[in-house]
Amino acid sequence: MFTQSAKSFPIPSIQRLPVYLRFLKEQRNRGNTLISCTQIAEEFGQLSVQVRKDLSITGISGRPKVGYRTNELIDAIEGFLGWNREIKAFLIGAGSLGSAILGYAGFVEHGLRIVAAFDIDPVKIGNSIHRCPVFDLRQMYGMGQNAGIEIGILTVPSVAAQEAANILVQIGVQGIWNYTPIRLDIPQEIICEEVKLSASFAVLSSRLKKSPVFPDEYV
Amino acid sequence: MFTQSAKSFPIPSIQRLPVYLRFLKEQRNRGNTLISCTQIAEEFGQLSVQVRKDLSITGISGRPKVGYRTNELIDAIEGFLGWNREIKAFLIGAGSLGSAILGYAGFVEHGLRIVAAFDIDPVKIGNSIHRCPVFDLRQMYGMGQNAGIEIGILTVPSVAAQEAANILVQIGVQGIWNYTPIRLDIPQEIICEEVKLSASFAVLSSRLKKSPVFPDEYV
Repeated sequence: MFTQSAKSFPIPSIQRLPVYLRFLKEQRNRGNTLISCTQIAEEFGQLSVQVRKDLSITGISGRPKVGYRTNELIDAIEGFLGWNREIKAFLIGAGSLGSAILGYAGFVEHGLRIVAAFDIDPVKIGNSIHRCPVFDLRQMYGMGQNAGIEIGILTVPSVAAQEAANILVQIGVQGIWNYTPIRLDIPQEIICEEVKLSASFAVLSSRLKKSPVFPDEYV
Repeated sequence: MFTQSAKSFPIPSIQRLPVYLRFLKEQRNRGNTLISCTQIAEEFGQLSVQVRKDLSITGISGRPKVGYRTNELIDAIEGFLGWNREIKAFLIGAGSLGSAILGYAGFVEHGLRIVAAFDIDPVKIGNSIHRCPVFDLRQMYGMGQNAGIEIGILTVPSVAAQEAANILVQIGVQGIWNYTPIRLDIPQEIICEEVKLSASFAVLSSRLKKSPVFPDEYV
């Protein structure tokens, strides 16, 4: 939410692309070689014009009354998202959340290759989690030199977040995927994508209350 | 992103409240009894007017040239979010992600009380994860009767998501916190908050590419 660099495309559109992509792959598996915005829109309860706008950021445009070739649309989305290539990553913090990410096959499918995890826990160091080797955090700087690591995934406790981010900056990552609640102090040119689970919980819990409170009641 | 019921307040504003709240508690601990929108705005690189608007959804209004009483502002935010009371929850799927959520102390602080976790793995059933007992999924329906469970947290594999959601609906939860990539078929009146990790990864990965692709190149 407090993203730190310029965005060229609407974030909500980008966020919807993976959902469309999953649907398109299902359609392809069923042998549907053509797909229209209307079909996609109906599946997701969206307006057709919104779907068209979302898809247009990938550079593709459908043919009137025909739609898109499913294959081409899948390629366009994957190309736009960078999911048609390998993205090398380090994961820092091999706790429950880190392990969950290491075990999520979906990310592998999207090209994410977590080549190493780092932790300070001697019990974890030297072992593997979901086939990813866990190293001593002190090895990260050395291992990250010229290793082509594009992103760092931060799943450390809050107190360790900034220090881990500093090392990631030093090894030259392009982006940090920040699962901690900490707002990192990093150079502007580094992309920071924050996963705010508390923000998500806030949206849910604020709508739960049995007797809704309206601002008027306070004024 | 495809939320299923009407929203009364801007989602981005709600999402920013937990961040402000953390800052306000820090300020209170430092003995700062008054706080202004400008101070909050400076901390987060936001516009002051945006902060004021965000805070206004809680029903509070600051005094010109004085600001807010820190304590009152904290109370207003916690009240709005429903974080000043206990919210009982079931968690379904005690894998890595489920364990991470069970172990996250922050949610406890926000009033979330996960009273039971459910799984189908005999190794997990009968044990506890972060002091939360794990039960057989088949017990959920019975245990959920008249138990005042307000939300269900879905951390199951995709294939099990809809079935687990069906049971949650049957036991009368108000909301589902869905960590699976599945779009659930549930009654409209049930609040569904989706944590889309793939959407977050899409935002990051789409901005990573070394040679940015502009729509023009495709046209």
